[in-house]
Amino acid sequence: MTQPLFITFEGPEGAGKTSVLQALIAELKPLLGDDLVTTREPGGNPISEAIRAILQPEEDNGMDDRTEALLYTAARRQHLVSVVLPALAAGKIVISDRYVDSSLAYQGGGRGLGVDNIWQINQFAIDGLMPDLTIYFDVPAEVGLARVMANRQGKIDRLDKEDLSFHKKVRETYLSLQSDFSDRIKIIDATQPLTEVIAATRTLLFEIMATRKESL
Amino acid sequence: MTQPLFITFEGPEGAGKTSVLQALIAELKPLLGDDLVTTREPGGNPISEAIRAILQPEEDNGMDDRTEALLYTAARRQHLVSVVLPALAAGKIVISDRYVDSSLAYQGGGRGLGVDNIWQINQFAIDGLMPDLTIYFDVPAEVGLARVMANRQGKIDRLDKEDLSFHKKVRETYLSLQSDFSDRIKIIDATQPLTEVIAATRTLLFEIMATRKESL
Repeated sequence: MTQPLFITFEGPEGAGKTSVLQALIAELKPLLGDDLVTTREPGGNPISEAIRAILQPEEDNGMDDRTEALLYTAARRQHLVSVVLPALAAGKIVISDRYVDSSLAYQGGGRGLGVDNIWQINQFAIDGLMPDLTIYFDVPAEVGLARVMANRQGKIDRLDKEDLSFHKKVRETYLSLQSDFSDRIKIIDATQPLTEVIAATRTLLFEIMATRKESL
Repeated sequence: MTQPLFITFEGPEGAGKTSVLQALIAELKPLLGDDLVTTREPGGNPISEAIRAILQPEEDNGMDDRTEALLYTAARRQHLVSVVLPALAAGKIVISDRYVDSSLAYQGGGRGLGVDNIWQINQFAIDGLMPDLTIYFDVPAEVGLARVMANRQGKIDRLDKEDLSFHKKVRETYLSLQSDFSDRIKIIDATQPLTEVIAATRTLLFEIMATRKESL
């Protein structure tokens, strides 16, 4: 069996990480086949999808910020148990679009609940499972939000409605996490043209895949 | 404005606490009117009810124990913000059927996730709001489960399906909490006839209500 790898993609709204991931799946899937598992929170398991439905209602439902943080953490736990852990146990490469750093940045930083508080409830959820590599796609809040507005043609969800200062706090928190955990979190300038962002991401993925060994 | 009071009722399955509460509401409501607010988790707010629906599915949905603990904690937070905190802010007496000790006993003890771990995620949810008084209705697991089976005539929910050892661990944890926090948590022997359990509860409620002062 090969050594499992757990890789996460992180970034603010409009960083383009989902487009990058789709482009790289198209390249990597023919090479890796079933060895590559790509997923995104909440990840298509019924429990996490049901939680997501509560988190993204049609209309504002008066949800408290701490309730929101706990629900994202619960959905993460179930996604981890249902999707990520079984794939890692089978020695696969798992790439997840968002993981624990999203909660630290959005709820800890953006909502102002404190990174340490959000880390504490997430420690309970992830029970020690941190990514081998996190790729952080960095764009200024103004750039990211402008892209979101252009791409979605007015169809916006709850988080997009938050003001610019929220998104600035999210980015500041991501940058601070990247600085504190620079061994794990690699930063890519996502204001570059998409082909260059893809190339930089490809390089990071091939670097870590080259370190992967056969395990017992 | 009068001083608010926050009182919680706790106990294992079949302890009879809900029957006791109903009997005392019938007595107290004519005396206290709107000054008395009785509630139970998840407490009739739409978000917590939606969470409860995920927690109590028709069929086993493979929910992880930590997901379950986080969802109960999220539902508690929203119930607190939607129902309990506004009533306390208005100087009322709030009696809640279940609160944080239920999670400590059921998930911390019963599920074996550890009281300290469950306390940590609940600290985030309750943000310092502990009850002024908790009444713990104590019955041995065998007695409680036998009552549940008799009362519900075979209609059992997920927690009831757990084996006796689960319910024994729940009771042990409640007893340990009561011993550790005996100033806050008062124990009532709920194997007594219902009228005596009601009388003992009435005494505790009148004692704490007598300490209530006019506040500023």
